[in-house]
Amino acid sequence: MRKVAVVGIGHSKFGKRKGVTIKELSHEAITPALQDAGITAKDVDAGVIAIAGEEFAAQGCPAAAIGDYVGLTGKPVYRVEAACASGSAAVRTAWTQIASGLADIALAAGVETMTHMSTERATELMARAGDALWEYPYGVSFPAFYALTATAHMAQYGTTREQLSTVSVKNHKYGALNPYAHFYQKPVDLQTAMKSVMISHPLNLFDCCPISDGAAAVILASEEKAKQLTDTPIWIIGLGGGSDTMQISERQSLTGLLGTRRAAEQAFKMAKLEPKDIQGMNVHDCFTIAEIMAYEDLGFCKKGEGGKFAQEGQTDIGGKIPTNIDGGLKAKGHPIAATGVSMTYEATKQLRGQAEKGRQIPNLEHFLTMNCGMTGQFMFVHIYSR
Amino acid sequence: MRKVAVVGIGHSKFGKRKGVTIKELSHEAITPALQDAGITAKDVDAGVIAIAGEEFAAQGCPAAAIGDYVGLTGKPVYRVEAACASGSAAVRTAWTQIASGLADIALAAGVETMTHMSTERATELMARAGDALWEYPYGVSFPAFYALTATAHMAQYGTTREQLSTVSVKNHKYGALNPYAHFYQKPVDLQTAMKSVMISHPLNLFDCCPISDGAAAVILASEEKAKQLTDTPIWIIGLGGGSDTMQISERQSLTGLLGTRRAAEQAFKMAKLEPKDIQGMNVHDCFTIAEIMAYEDLGFCKKGEGGKFAQEGQTDIGGKIPTNIDGGLKAKGHPIAATGVSMTYEATKQLRGQAEKGRQIPNLEHFLTMNCGMTGQFMFVHIYSR
Repeated sequence: MRKVAVVGIGHSKFGKRKGVTIKELSHEAITPALQDAGITAKDVDAGVIAIAGEEFAAQGCPAAAIGDYVGLTGKPVYRVEAACASGSAAVRTAWTQIASGLADIALAAGVETMTHMSTERATELMARAGDALWEYPYGVSFPAFYALTATAHMAQYGTTREQLSTVSVKNHKYGALNPYAHFYQKPVDLQTAMKSVMISHPLNLFDCCPISDGAAAVILASEEKAKQLTDTPIWIIGLGGGSDTMQISERQSLTGLLGTRRAAEQAFKMAKLEPKDIQGMNVHDCFTIAEIMAYEDLGFCKKGEGGKFAQEGQTDIGGKIPTNIDGGLKAKGHPIAATGVSMTYEATKQLRGQAEKGRQIPNLEHFLTMNCGMTGQFMFVHIYSR
Repeated sequence: MRKVAVVGIGHSKFGKRKGVTIKELSHEAITPALQDAGITAKDVDAGVIAIAGEEFAAQGCPAAAIGDYVGLTGKPVYRVEAACASGSAAVRTAWTQIASGLADIALAAGVETMTHMSTERATELMARAGDALWEYPYGVSFPAFYALTATAHMAQYGTTREQLSTVSVKNHKYGALNPYAHFYQKPVDLQTAMKSVMISHPLNLFDCCPISDGAAAVILASEEKAKQLTDTPIWIIGLGGGSDTMQISERQSLTGLLGTRRAAEQAFKMAKLEPKDIQGMNVHDCFTIAEIMAYEDLGFCKKGEGGKFAQEGQTDIGGKIPTNIDGGLKAKGHPIAATGVSMTYEATKQLRGQAEKGRQIPNLEHFLTMNCGMTGQFMFVHIYSR
């Protein structure tokens, strides 16, 4: 197995990006990533593009259009899709192409345009990722599913309204410091977060990530190439993947995700590390309850104690495991397939010590990212090292 | 780089499969593939599912639904998409997961349901894979594009109507012997093929592959696992990928595909072989002219001589390079994302000596598959060895 490092990163502004196509948005992330790596598209052996929805993209088979637009014409390029975890599937796929020896330098990018349609249409398209026969037609959209998990978590472990909002406030605090975030310069106080409009009980507006447009890109390289290109390669040393039952009704529990535990187990084993060795992470906070469950399923606190863990400040800077210090999905935004790649971008930025003022995690050696598709049917955990 | 072998294969019947969902169709291919490998879903470390279109699938993010349905619950599963080359992208992705050491046993499957909608709607959905701004709105559907290439090939090299139909007749001859083929037991004579209804001049009905439902699956394994599982592992020893400009108007020539030449060059180099070392192949004959161009771009005859090459019988059994001896896309059918995996199925079946009566290629050592997405924007060449 060849070692693989991140050697270049790029990020578009996340948010409502009216009138921008997926090609243009991809270019905003891919071109800076190539420049950051000190290379041109000619140096890239293979490209993997994450896009979750064709109707979102407004282009069939969109990877070809993007690859050609950014200069990869002639090179092998294709698309991966794992719902909201598509971006991490792209990083994993680019990683395996290099680790296997098929490529020396590979691009992983994720992009989504979502705000060109109504919020209702976007919510419906996302809900269609649920079981098309047994769940989607009966109203199990994503807010509804995560509301079920929040209710179960509250009933079983006493998780509170305030604990949910604590996660939201933390993520907005750091999103406000991230110029690429959808809610840049928009912190929120606890009272506002607790009393915002109800979306799906018990989840209110500030428990839910927004619908955003955006793109992120990373350049991965083999050990030999990485050492030629940069003095600060960021190694991806652990990869894990998991999934879960398609139908929620078949699950043994609603208060955790099997896929997270499976993926984390693999990634920690491969990296030869434990949760105590990780100093910072990004997790999939599509809803505040998802972040709380992630603390638990990844092994950073006991099952049921995630709410308390957040309230104690353990996932803020200065706590045991600073989490989503770029704003997370909640405040940075969640252009579906861009999210996983944006997590790798953030891991690299933090480990390089390049995060913006007020949001650099100190003393980082290892970083973890956890990206969830649908309601846990796609799950990827990556572990990074300086 | 770890060696990777095909150790199990499965195939559904291709054709009009009324009332069958993508989950059921996938099961028809994946379950026999697992049985052929002598394993169960529990033994599989990772799954890669090729599906070209979400509207074809009638299920958002369909890989999750399929993975769970065939027993991969808990395992990492995701989707790859490269238009009509999606199946080969799945095989490549599964291959890299094993070669990199991330998995020991991986599933690659491809499935498409296409006949549940009107032919007009299916043609429109496919045409949307063309440039959504500059080509699709002006009527450049796939038959129209390949008609342009056929016209150019005829004008530049003197390729004839009869030569095009020769390809169709050969592929129907062998499709008629393949029980999984859409046109099983339906050979066609030269006069019928030459005089069928015009679709897009100069391409008539018998120059065009049908719209089909279907699935194919293969199980790949590391060298260690492969030797435990089977006495006849089929090694994938060369992989190449390529692409081309998104817009056809930007190409230097319409009589060949840059992506084929790039992908073939990589695959032959990796396998340390030349065209003369290959004794059988499957190429992407979505239209008869595409098969003729493939002979040339892959290096089996000179540019411009593909039509003559077919007419001489060089691509039939007994010729220099028997091609599409399972019926090809033309007669086996083309359920988009199943096609590339079906090619790996056929390569394995032929190299094992298990092809049905009348269509076994003799004296096989090496086999090649070439799978094209869109009008060459996605291209994959794989080389196999006994």
